[in-house]
Amino acid sequence: MKRQKLNELSATVLSAMLESGDCTAVQVAQACLERVQARDADVKAWAYIDPDAVLEQARVRDREARRGPLHGIPVGVKDIMHTFDMPTEYASPIYRGNRTREDAACVAMLRDAGCVIMGKTETMEFAVYNPARTHNPHNLAHTPGGSSSGSAAATADFMVPLALGTQTGGSIIRPASYCGVVGYKPSYRLINRAGVKAVSDSLDTVGVLARTVGDAALIASALIGWKGVDLYSDSDQLRIGLCRSPAGKFAEAATLAAVEETAARLGNARCSIREVVLSGPFDRALDAQASVNLYEARRSLSFERINHPAQISKVLTARFEQGEKIRLYDYLAAQAVLSECRERLAEVFEAVDVLIEPSSTGEAPRGLENPGDSAFNRMWTALHVPCVSLPVLRGPSGLPLGLQVIGPINSDKITVQVADQIAMRLQ
Amino acid sequence: MKRQKLNELSATVLSAMLESGDCTAVQVAQACLERVQARDADVKAWAYIDPDAVLEQARVRDREARRGPLHGIPVGVKDIMHTFDMPTEYASPIYRGNRTREDAACVAMLRDAGCVIMGKTETMEFAVYNPARTHNPHNLAHTPGGSSSGSAAATADFMVPLALGTQTGGSIIRPASYCGVVGYKPSYRLINRAGVKAVSDSLDTVGVLARTVGDAALIASALIGWKGVDLYSDSDQLRIGLCRSPAGKFAEAATLAAVEETAARLGNARCSIREVVLSGPFDRALDAQASVNLYEARRSLSFERINHPAQISKVLTARFEQGEKIRLYDYLAAQAVLSECRERLAEVFEAVDVLIEPSSTGEAPRGLENPGDSAFNRMWTALHVPCVSLPVLRGPSGLPLGLQVIGPINSDKITVQVADQIAMRLQ
Repeated sequence: MKRQKLNELSATVLSAMLESGDCTAVQVAQACLERVQARDADVKAWAYIDPDAVLEQARVRDREARRGPLHGIPVGVKDIMHTFDMPTEYASPIYRGNRTREDAACVAMLRDAGCVIMGKTETMEFAVYNPARTHNPHNLAHTPGGSSSGSAAATADFMVPLALGTQTGGSIIRPASYCGVVGYKPSYRLINRAGVKAVSDSLDTVGVLARTVGDAALIASALIGWKGVDLYSDSDQLRIGLCRSPAGKFAEAATLAAVEETAARLGNARCSIREVVLSGPFDRALDAQASVNLYEARRSLSFERINHPAQISKVLTARFEQGEKIRLYDYLAAQAVLSECRERLAEVFEAVDVLIEPSSTGEAPRGLENPGDSAFNRMWTALHVPCVSLPVLRGPSGLPLGLQVIGPINSDKITVQVADQIAMRLQ
Repeated sequence: MKRQKLNELSATVLSAMLESGDCTAVQVAQACLERVQARDADVKAWAYIDPDAVLEQARVRDREARRGPLHGIPVGVKDIMHTFDMPTEYASPIYRGNRTREDAACVAMLRDAGCVIMGKTETMEFAVYNPARTHNPHNLAHTPGGSSSGSAAATADFMVPLALGTQTGGSIIRPASYCGVVGYKPSYRLINRAGVKAVSDSLDTVGVLARTVGDAALIASALIGWKGVDLYSDSDQLRIGLCRSPAGKFAEAATLAAVEETAARLGNARCSIREVVLSGPFDRALDAQASVNLYEARRSLSFERINHPAQISKVLTARFEQGEKIRLYDYLAAQAVLSECRERLAEVFEAVDVLIEPSSTGEAPRGLENPGDSAFNRMWTALHVPCVSLPVLRGPSGLPLGLQVIGPINSDKITVQVADQIAMRLQ
């Protein structure tokens, strides 16, 4: 068996090797940097990376006492998160060369946990919609999805084991689906958002991209404060709801068929499967999420919208115009729809541990212009519940496709544990 | 009758004068700057003010077409809000000379509405608890309260007609009470928070300080998007709940007596008064707010806490230590208490239009060390409901004391209208 390179190993394996002295943080960083050097001219996952500064961080890690399981682990940071030692440009020409005094809270926590911050990953303009220049590492002719485009691509392409992302619509789960990695969007506000560019205050959620559920749990633990994650045992009976949500009508037939088939397999693997139909207020949830998003984004980006219109993309300008039509009354009505859905969803989770549905409508679209459809993500983001995308499906042309696992609000640890069991039982 | 100086007039009156050509924006700015020049060596309301830059803004306003009712109106901005043309220091030595590329969304909206940004007002370290150097303009030996210390003092002292503030505990309503001005803390998230230093994501709320309710409504309209505010008619019957909240036990006897007497007067002024006792989950609301605040603030300020401990005050360091003891489970339990209170409070507002209670436990404490007690504010902040402080009471030593008017969540316009009527009926 070919020995895996350090950059190909999971953070969990690297952590054990770093602890036992089987490798150094500098060696891990070098392996990741070599992969970036070899591949990033094609993939374009990075908005900013300074190899010398990365190696210097790694040398410091090797010299100092071990801070915990993330000590010496390289992490990519989405370029809407502030970093005191690197520029933060939000993928906007308005912020070219922008420097902040401080780290975003999530970045500061990761440094404190011993991570090596590799660099800033590419995103879409203010993490909204204008596509990034990043390519899908599985097929460079396809989009990686967005807006955590670089974080998903860099993780999928073995440039880093872990990366931070954010989701306001579908910006973690969708690129995770397209790039064939694990995406974890936590419950709203569970990972602190200070120092992350605000777009939609009710929706913006910080989360992670990883190659295994265990790695996602490892980095999330440091950010959320779990005291370790005991994964479920193989013998536990899992209660799974096969979700019929309003997003279903946007899905490709092959995507729905793949999820049906997966549910059947889980039904034979100590899981009880029941259909869960979400209708009534849920039929208005996608529109409500869109209204909240457009209303808030237009206001959050007031400075840029008012002072730098010529440096804002056409697609974002169009969104501002849509947002202008949403009045305060419409906005509050949309928030009320989402509140009602949250109450109804809590009742659904009395009968099932998690819901499953596709992570995206299909595999990654061809070309970079269209970052894909977030129909399967926007409602969950707005309902503030934890979602995990598992890279266990394939699309018709062989590109990755995610299975999405959705849990009850603030029950993130259990949701991640169940998602891990689902991934294991599908192997 | 002595003719009032321009800096002593309300924004509403100034707006009419500016529109009719009875004064210019430069004249208004000059009058305000002269007041600052005369008084700020004593009051110390301003963290940053550049008279030449203020006059240049005013000259631009005088030259350009009128943008709306706020055109040419000077506004103070709390120094935790980003401004592209002035430093933003958060009252912390860590951020001395800090510049940001952008304006906070609320500042950008005010400039767009034609305001002249006067400067940055003093605050407490990261708007938490370490006192500002600002004095109460009614008696310099007393605190103005905080953390919107400079915004309240500058407004009270006729240096500006209006200022922006924020409230996480009691940071708008309490200084408004102590300084004898109108404070308006909107429903959570109604004024956009982008570009405002985050301390406690679930609590941080942007609001305003003014000398009249009409002025507060004027500036809030530009920030929230109300299409004008029709104030209530004098003949309307108002349903007022005299609130017996868990904060009552922290109040001075004279404060409670003043509110009782005010309620009796309102009972003779076309208001129905009924007692409203908040108990049950409300008895746990103050503790829950404290847990949420401490937990979130410690995390939001991770960069500063981890990297600059020597530049953090003792009082904030102690709060971080308290926050460290709150585990994720405690935090989520506190959030659940607040959710339950929100549901119960909505039922209370079926029987009354607004609740009234004191804005603070008493008048401003002597000295600057103690910014006062926020017991009457923290629960409402955490329940996300609109609060207006009316400067209609006096304490035993003759200092101002506010009457607090609390309305149903997202019913801000009606709450402000009712508060205005209450102020009128008490004249």
